[in-house]
Amino acid sequence: MTLEDAKQRDAADPLAFARERFRLPDGLIYLDGNSLGALPAGTRARLDELVVDEWGKDLISSWTKHGWIDWPVRIGAKLAPIVGAKPSELLVADSTSVCLFKLLAAAVRARPGRRTILVQEGNFPTDTYVAEGLAGMLGLEVCRAEPGKIAAAIDADTAVVSLSHVDYRSGARVDMTAVNEAARAAGALVVWDLCHSAGAIEVQLDASGSELAVGCGYKYLNGGPGAPAFVFVAERIQDEIRPPLQGWMGHAEPFAFEESYRPTGGIARFLTGTPSILGLAALDCGLQTFGGIAMADVEAKSRALLELFIDEVEARCGDQVELFGPRDLALRGSHVCFAYPDGYAVMQALIARGIVGDFRAPDLMRFGFAPLYNRFEEVWRAAEAIADILETREWDQPRFRERKKVT
Amino acid sequence: MTLEDAKQRDAADPLAFARERFRLPDGLIYLDGNSLGALPAGTRARLDELVVDEWGKDLISSWTKHGWIDWPVRIGAKLAPIVGAKPSELLVADSTSVCLFKLLAAAVRARPGRRTILVQEGNFPTDTYVAEGLAGMLGLEVCRAEPGKIAAAIDADTAVVSLSHVDYRSGARVDMTAVNEAARAAGALVVWDLCHSAGAIEVQLDASGSELAVGCGYKYLNGGPGAPAFVFVAERIQDEIRPPLQGWMGHAEPFAFEESYRPTGGIARFLTGTPSILGLAALDCGLQTFGGIAMADVEAKSRALLELFIDEVEARCGDQVELFGPRDLALRGSHVCFAYPDGYAVMQALIARGIVGDFRAPDLMRFGFAPLYNRFEEVWRAAEAIADILETREWDQPRFRERKKVT
Repeated sequence: MTLEDAKQRDAADPLAFARERFRLPDGLIYLDGNSLGALPAGTRARLDELVVDEWGKDLISSWTKHGWIDWPVRIGAKLAPIVGAKPSELLVADSTSVCLFKLLAAAVRARPGRRTILVQEGNFPTDTYVAEGLAGMLGLEVCRAEPGKIAAAIDADTAVVSLSHVDYRSGARVDMTAVNEAARAAGALVVWDLCHSAGAIEVQLDASGSELAVGCGYKYLNGGPGAPAFVFVAERIQDEIRPPLQGWMGHAEPFAFEESYRPTGGIARFLTGTPSILGLAALDCGLQTFGGIAMADVEAKSRALLELFIDEVEARCGDQVELFGPRDLALRGSHVCFAYPDGYAVMQALIARGIVGDFRAPDLMRFGFAPLYNRFEEVWRAAEAIADILETREWDQPRFRERKKVT
Repeated sequence: MTLEDAKQRDAADPLAFARERFRLPDGLIYLDGNSLGALPAGTRARLDELVVDEWGKDLISSWTKHGWIDWPVRIGAKLAPIVGAKPSELLVADSTSVCLFKLLAAAVRARPGRRTILVQEGNFPTDTYVAEGLAGMLGLEVCRAEPGKIAAAIDADTAVVSLSHVDYRSGARVDMTAVNEAARAAGALVVWDLCHSAGAIEVQLDASGSELAVGCGYKYLNGGPGAPAFVFVAERIQDEIRPPLQGWMGHAEPFAFEESYRPTGGIARFLTGTPSILGLAALDCGLQTFGGIAMADVEAKSRALLELFIDEVEARCGDQVELFGPRDLALRGSHVCFAYPDGYAVMQALIARGIVGDFRAPDLMRFGFAPLYNRFEEVWRAAEAIADILETREWDQPRFRERKKVT
């Protein structure tokens, strides 16, 4: 494919208009929206209004006057079309790790007598750390299964399975329906981590029979650095399960200041403390970038971007680089890793050229494609740059080899 | 005291200059900084810079380029002079409820075999809800002691005491040293809740022999709605205790993506997930309002404001209202409640006049005095308005009697 071809793909892209919903630096090719989503066009003015007019002028009365008190539920509801759930099944609050702890703890409480939390080998580490912390606290055991063998590893002793929908390195996408069915047959629960799928591909929480999930607000949802996370609890089990990390915001009457906890009904019982209003407002702006856009179209563009990138990189670099994870795009999320022994240095050389991806140990160059703002032209140029950097060994300089702390 | 006298107190106030560090609406008398602190003058521009220049332009590289990754520890360190601790003992993250859960859970883990979490009757409810949630999870028991009888209630079965330094209603201030000593003698730990004291009065965490504490960023610390909370862990026990709510930000090498959790040393091990960068930046601005100000001066002004208010209200309203909590100002924090049967309606009438306090069930009109921005003139006018509203029964109108959800 030529650069002209790629530009024509952009001209014909039905989602091309969405790029205007973001403020990206001129000339930068940003392929790291899977780590930190780009700045939506509306966030700056909205935060300024929130700070000056709501906090600054209306002060404490803003909790009712501007509805702050309802934001975790109201903004959560806006996620419904993005993750294929009912508005009443979603809540925004805390960090992903804290949300995961809440749901795993609630799940093991709902399955008394069962002794194991099942995770996947190579899972996003913090998810395993959370499971280990909970297991250590309760005297349970964390069991690890190989990718692809999770469903088979669920047994009568499994209280809950903690699993990423899309793997943070391989990009492999798990068949949610199959795992949910295996878990249900064995009487176990599943907590899905949607960090690397929500906002980038189609997620069908309800249609796949999912019961519990968490996800990240700062990646493809464009909620800003450290944005609040989200919690999904299927309506049918909301009143049956109860997180032990309980606080006043999940109480039936938070402002009655009752002496003992009495959880409210529905999704709001998964709230704990006072939520970050600044974080919620920014996430709201992030979710608005999805307005009027069908996730089927998002997924179709994700796949087209991925296909172009993989084809161009492999055509130009040959077997110098190795695709990590599934080749079948239907089995992938929206990012891709290529392994290269000096991948770290190559990534630094790319960044120096204004093409931003990231690096994951031991040797993976990772590129994320955000269908709302990435262009075919960018993908083409990134592939060309990788080939050029390998060809010229531009990466082989101390300034690129020196390891810095990376996120 | 006359209005002129009050104005002279303001003219002579060594902290009067600090009012310029805030943006308060003209004419509003805001006596609710104990619920939501006022907007610091620097917050608007700082957040705009963060959004546009850091997130918007530098995107993912901001984690290192702008040092985001270190903010929880670096901003926490700025709290040191405010709460009488070492910089290395403080961390900013999560909500107060989540932080409290972490420390209580770490404390009970450090005291195996002990079966009770001791709380105070009438404690801020969410603190008790957190203790109940943890106890339910671990099969422990929550015991309640009357105010003033906590130290005596600590016994060999007490794993941890959860206690507010200043009570959210009565304003009563607990002698931290005495409780810490009683706990140490019995082998128990104490987790202090500083929500209603940090930033308003002198807090001496280290000098009082405290080991664990949490506090709120959005009250007297002026960090904005839902600001991140803070955690204090005394240096001498940091490596000895370990919170089970563990995540990648507290790992020894978060970006090595190791398969198992390995806590970092020091205070950073109390981090869990990715912190809210917007929230941290705003809290940083809030903490800057304390720059160059000694907490002894803050406490002295708090006491002077309180004394003026109590004297004026009692002189004008007689026994129509009743002071709730200690009369000795040395035994108080920086807010005061007066009980009045129709206190709710009186507070609404005050708010309609532009004098903002809040209401706490069943009949308490609560007024908080933020020494950095409240003026003696405001306190005088508030007392005069209360007397006038009672005298004229201005409060006795349906629009003031109707209950709204209040925070």
